[in-house]
Amino acid sequence: MFDFVIIGGGAAGYSAAISARQRNKTVCILRPEQNETWLSKAGKIHNYLGMPDISGKDLLAAFEQHVLDMGAEIKFGIAKQIMKNGDSFFISTGPDYIEARSVVVATGVRQPKQIPGEAEFVGNGVSYCGTCDGMLYKGKVVAVVAESIESIKEVDFLSSIAEKVYLSKGGIAFDFLAENVEVISGKVMEILGDETIQSILVGDQNYKVDGVFIFRNTTAYSSLLADLETEGNYIKTDRHMHTNIKGIFAAGDCTGEPLQIAKAVGEGNIAVLAAIKEKLV
Amino acid sequence: MFDFVIIGGGAAGYSAAISARQRNKTVCILRPEQNETWLSKAGKIHNYLGMPDISGKDLLAAFEQHVLDMGAEIKFGIAKQIMKNGDSFFISTGPDYIEARSVVVATGVRQPKQIPGEAEFVGNGVSYCGTCDGMLYKGKVVAVVAESIESIKEVDFLSSIAEKVYLSKGGIAFDFLAENVEVISGKVMEILGDETIQSILVGDQNYKVDGVFIFRNTTAYSSLLADLETEGNYIKTDRHMHTNIKGIFAAGDCTGEPLQIAKAVGEGNIAVLAAIKEKLV
Repeated sequence: MFDFVIIGGGAAGYSAAISARQRNKTVCILRPEQNETWLSKAGKIHNYLGMPDISGKDLLAAFEQHVLDMGAEIKFGIAKQIMKNGDSFFISTGPDYIEARSVVVATGVRQPKQIPGEAEFVGNGVSYCGTCDGMLYKGKVVAVVAESIESIKEVDFLSSIAEKVYLSKGGIAFDFLAENVEVISGKVMEILGDETIQSILVGDQNYKVDGVFIFRNTTAYSSLLADLETEGNYIKTDRHMHTNIKGIFAAGDCTGEPLQIAKAVGEGNIAVLAAIKEKLV
Repeated sequence: MFDFVIIGGGAAGYSAAISARQRNKTVCILRPEQNETWLSKAGKIHNYLGMPDISGKDLLAAFEQHVLDMGAEIKFGIAKQIMKNGDSFFISTGPDYIEARSVVVATGVRQPKQIPGEAEFVGNGVSYCGTCDGMLYKGKVVAVVAESIESIKEVDFLSSIAEKVYLSKGGIAFDFLAENVEVISGKVMEILGDETIQSILVGDQNYKVDGVFIFRNTTAYSSLLADLETEGNYIKTDRHMHTNIKGIFAAGDCTGEPLQIAKAVGEGNIAVLAAIKEKLV
């Protein structure tokens, strides 16, 4: 049980982490192994006060070192779902979960573009976790939409259970694929069915499937936490970074413009101090 | 005419300045010559992301260097009053003024503790600017409450006009005092009068005076800008750091808790980008 789980390894999440460690709170930062934030790809950064003329990569590295030096824990994984459990929260990463008294959502600006039909079949044929739901498809046919490197392990696992796996590889490099995995070229354009999933549409071709697994580096807010209030693509917060759910805060680009490092660092700090002030941790 | 005048040389003001320079806007930072912010006196700072384990003094120096390298101008002076002038603002420093299209108030947490009677007689015997109002007291008796080093010049000037100057020295070191300056020991406890000022009360002694000059490093918001909306000791802002007055923003400790560097840096950034986005500059 941590005081804080912070979802996201960018400026907002890391600032939240050091603010929590400064107050001697336990912190777990949950982030993808490939930490491809906007910052990691930025060229020279000039407007983060005190650290002029630095590459985004170096700035992110300095942030991460600071976080580790302050004693925060970094765990690789993608938050799939947040569940309330009395006064604490379970954050599911698929194969595992983390428990925390308070959560700071700092997942950045990118919300996944969902596939038509995806939202409709979530929990009823669409899954974001192979190790959780794979057994439901023993001897059946599934499709995998691969957009994160965790897909590699998941496809391996699913191919050992399902009769057949159709794989849309995205940009992911698979070293090995079992014989029952068929790579399909082209994007999955739609998930079709009536009460259950019947097929996927790729180009002008239909593939008959029983289930669709989608692996991305970000989870749609609606999947992460169905009740989370949003405004357009952003999580709605007040000036102290409260979301509409007690104990859950948001910080950084995911709360809206301006999409800036300084703003993210400020908001991470504010969120954690609000949680502490309100004795949530 | 500057795009931005930023009042205050702390984390919020400096962050605002680099955000403006990054967008190629002209910036004047107005700050006291002795920049005694909370930060300059802090010991080790651990929780400004990316710059671990640094003294407040060194961090402030790094901030200032960054600001200067980005081409912002720093002017020593204390903002006494902000006046609207069509689409721009005049910021009076007493002897001088600066014009700007937009203003960021980043004056820190400290609001002056006013002397009983001070607010009542502002503009009617109480003045914050010797060079502005001194001539009104030719041949008369004035008191000076000295709490900033600008008092040194101001007392020198006032002693050349007034018949007598009573001086409450505060902690200020005066090298030279004219013969008509009498140092009074003890604090000015009250300013007394009816329609005009009659006297000041120091300890249990009354000094008959015609006017009182008060020199501090901060100006009360009510003097700076009578219409500025506040909440307790803080300036009221929305999430984009707008005050209630179009074109005037606030950032940092002066907008409320948490009183933290990261929050201040974030807010300075947000304020300036809001002004730019709204085409105020």
